[in-house]
Amino acid sequence: MRHELPIFQPKDPGYADRVHESFRLQQAMALIGAELPVVEPGHVEIHLPFKPEITQQHGFIHGGVVGMIADSAAGYAANTLTPAGTSVLTVEYKLNLLAPADGERLVARGEVVKPGRTLLITRAEVFAIRREQWTLCAVMQQTIMAMHGKKEGVE
Amino acid sequence: MRHELPIFQPKDPGYADRVHESFRLQQAMALIGAELPVVEPGHVEIHLPFKPEITQQHGFIHGGVVGMIADSAAGYAANTLTPAGTSVLTVEYKLNLLAPADGERLVARGEVVKPGRTLLITRAEVFAIRREQWTLCAVMQQTIMAMHGKKEGVE
Amino acid sequence: MRHELPIFQPKDPGYADRVHESFRLQQAMALIGAELPVVEPGHVEIHLPFKPEITQQHGFIHGGVVGMIADSAAGYAANTLTPAGTSVLTVEYKLNLLAPADGERLVARGEVVKPGRTLLITRAEVFAIRREQWTLCAVMQQTIMAMHGKKEGVE
Amino acid sequence: MRHELPIFQPKDPGYADRVHESFRLQQAMALIGAELPVVEPGHVEIHLPFKPEITQQHGFIHGGVVGMIADSAAGYAANTLTPAGTSVLTVEYKLNLLAPADGERLVARGEVVKPGRTLLITRAEVFAIRREQWTLCAVMQQTIMAMHGKKEGVE
Repeated sequence: MRHELPIFQPKDPGYADRVHESFRLQQAMALIGAELPVVEPGHVEIHLPFKPEITQQHGFIHGGVVGMIADSAAGYAANTLTPAGTSVLTVEYKLNLLAPADGERLVARGEVVKPGRTLLITRAEVFAIRREQWTLCAVMQQTIMAMHGKKEGVE
Repeated sequence: MRHELPIFQPKDPGYADRVHESFRLQQAMALIGAELPVVEPGHVEIHLPFKPEITQQHGFIHGGVVGMIADSAAGYAANTLTPAGTSVLTVEYKLNLLAPADGERLVARGEVVKPGRTLLITRAEVFAIRREQWTLCAVMQQTIMAMHGKKEGVE
Repeated sequence: MRHELPIFQPKDPGYADRVHESFRLQQAMALIGAELPVVEPGHVEIHLPFKPEITQQHGFIHGGVVGMIADSAAGYAANTLTPAGTSVLTVEYKLNLLAPADGERLVARGEVVKPGRTLLITRAEVFAIRREQWTLCAVMQQTIMAMHGKKEGVE
Repeated sequence: MRHELPIFQPKDPGYADRVHESFRLQQAMALIGAELPVVEPGHVEIHLPFKPEITQQHGFIHGGVVGMIADSAAGYAANTLTPAGTSVLTVEYKLNLLAPADGERLVARGEVVKPGRTLLITRAEVFAIRREQWTLCAVMQQTIMAMHGKKEGVE
């Protein structure tokens, strides 16, 4: 949309380490081959190289996998803005699939729209990249809940 | 809700074979270990046994994986009602995560709410089962588009 | 779906008065002519008689008005289960319009799916009734937040 | 998000007249007092001055009314891009309410994200304006269906 996204100030200077550590603990992300190259305040990117194991019946990347990386990118975007010692969970999301996920890799960009104390509203866009041509293949709108005083990770 | 779901008459007597064949072609379903034990007119179940490879950072099954099986169960429920020679694609879905997917297995039940010619509206519920105790862990509402004259599968 | 909805025990014995009082304060509900004939634990109905002032360009009741009563019915369903001295607000909802709202009146039925302490997940269905024939014209899935210690009404 | 929205070329040079004519026929828009000052290819604004008749129990503009103008702004944005002799209908939308609609007026901005032939995906943002201070109070993601060969209006 036409208004500028705000510049976000993270409450936890260690936000990037926290997000990378959580991502590293998500075995499902490793299973599909997802990578986390961009972690900035209120903005996270997940990249996903194509492999046959993540496809659907037409040979494109599965819409459910597109949803997984959109959900995670936006959830981690929220996570960059919460205080230390806080974990986040996805309350809900709504995903529109716009085009087949037909590319050598996907890029999911998650961004925070509104960082509330308890609830954070986020958006994500997923692009399929083929020969450096970017096609928008999904858009998502999401609600994230911050669980204060509850650290990420297996306890 | 309180009203009864309609009894659906499939347009294609071979609907079950068609759905099983499409599911078999989805490598992403094999990757996560999903099974398709129930295919009835307007109603499909996907089951997913727990394995560490599909977990998130707290050791529960990843919300994105929950979304994958909800999306697929409801999409295939739509697929049981479309004519032969028709494929379906997910236009969009909205998923609420209600509880951690903490169980020995998940059951995703997809059902058709309204079977239009071009668009089919569906719902899904996902349960986590631990020692035969069922916990509702996700609900989904979805829009499916029927692509008439376009067969499922890689061409 | 096929599982039974739970029987809900209201935490506030005065829940019905509280809901009726809040509804009475919503001038927008009076503007469109909405009525609140059913207020039960976890289940609320809003009825809306047809009038030309609430129609869209084809002469049916406006989809936005359908959304208003679906949102309100489900939000008040949540409200029946929160403690006294608590107000609720809509975090988000997702509405599918299934058929034109073509009837002498609409009935929106809201029900609680999961009553959490902070977040309550609800669903609604809207029917158009013409000569006692009920047509399902919308389904909604919604997230409600309980604001504890914050009374309803203008302060 | 960070990518630029495309520049849209309307298929019908009379798109603006068509949209204004349809809006004029929506009695529900007149009832709440909505105005349509901006109609551009792929972008429409609906403005709504505050009046007590459209408020909820806290004295702010009703969330359902916010949904009405978001739905309409994005639906008309889609309508600017469809061919002559085509009407549009809302398949579904998902609305997040971010802040109370507390202002002297609301501005709903609808924009097309992806203009398909049958389905158009759109977004809307709603701002509450108080003493020229703009507060983002809702974001919406929507699916619109184009009905080719079906004129707008009461027939």
